Amino acid sequence: MKYINFEDTSDTVSDEFFMKEALREAQKAFDADEVPIGAVIVHDGKIIARGHNLTETLNDVTAHAEMQAFTAAANYIGGKYLKDCTLYVTIEPCVMCAGASYWSQIKRIVFGARDEKRGYATISKDIVHPKTTVVSGIMEETCRELMQRFFQLKRR
Amino acid sequence: MKYINFEDTSDTVSDEFFMKEALREAQKAFDADEVPIGAVIVHDGKIIARGHNLTETLNDVTAHAEMQAFTAAANYIGGKYLKDCTLYVTIEPCVMCAGASYWSQIKRIVFGARDEKRGYATISKDIVHPKTTVVSGIMEETCRELMQRFFQLKRR
Repeated sequence: MKYINFEDTSDTVSDEFFMKEALREAQKAFDADEVPIGAVIVHDGKIIARGHNLTETLNDVTAHAEMQAFTAAANYIGGKYLKDCTLYVTIEPCVMCAGASYWSQIKRIVFGARDEKRGYATISKDIVHPKTTVVSGIMEETCRELMQRFFQLKRR
Repeated sequence: MKYINFEDTSDTVSDEFFMKEALREAQKAFDADEVPIGAVIVHDGKIIARGHNLTETLNDVTAHAEMQAFTAAANYIGGKYLKDCTLYVTIEPCVMCAGASYWSQIKRIVFGARDEKRGYATISKDIVHPKTTVVSGIMEETCRELMQRFFQLKRR
């Protein structure tokens, strides 16, 4: 568990800090030969949950980084709503994960790179909760490059 | 684990049989003071997974009946795709669950009653996989009545 006080920093600085932590999770997925997507959930400037894609390892399509992070965060908080939390995730959430974020009523979603094929916005931006703010493009290139590197290696 | 040979029966007969099993799961949710939705997953005429809504008990918005059934079915099969399986669920899946069904490439989804507020079709029918056939209206009244009874009791 890490703690950092961001009172004197702008949102961009803290968003980049936490996206780096999400990228650390994505790297763990990469190292396990999983599609490299990582996520962290932050509450009061503190990371309360982490997750990375484990669909192959667990043989489970529901084992996306975000889903695991939602479950872990709710467990930490002791309630299922994440109204004061921010999800940082390296790639735009899919329909399933955005659908889960709706139920959690999470305050903010910050993602790195868009998923042009399977991102939730390809279906509808209204999937997330009306109270959820979505920010994109934080460390976009790094997040996208990790995915590209993974699929290039797969195609060899 | 139950097994039944449906070779001599029509789809409707077997669909009703399995929907009754999904309703049995929904009743378990009802008894546990959870929104009464139940699901089973069937492969080769055999129930390989069961689930009922546990969002309150587990403090977890991802603990929908279908999500648990997807995870259990993949675990049973030993692979994450459910291409030869049918999901029976008492109420139309939400966006999260339909999004999960997309990843599983499940063959059929059979649901009882529509969810006019939160069913996936309120956003888009294209959320499910193009190879997935969706059937609705099996034991519709019974499925809906269980939900209505639950919410009537809640409002008292």
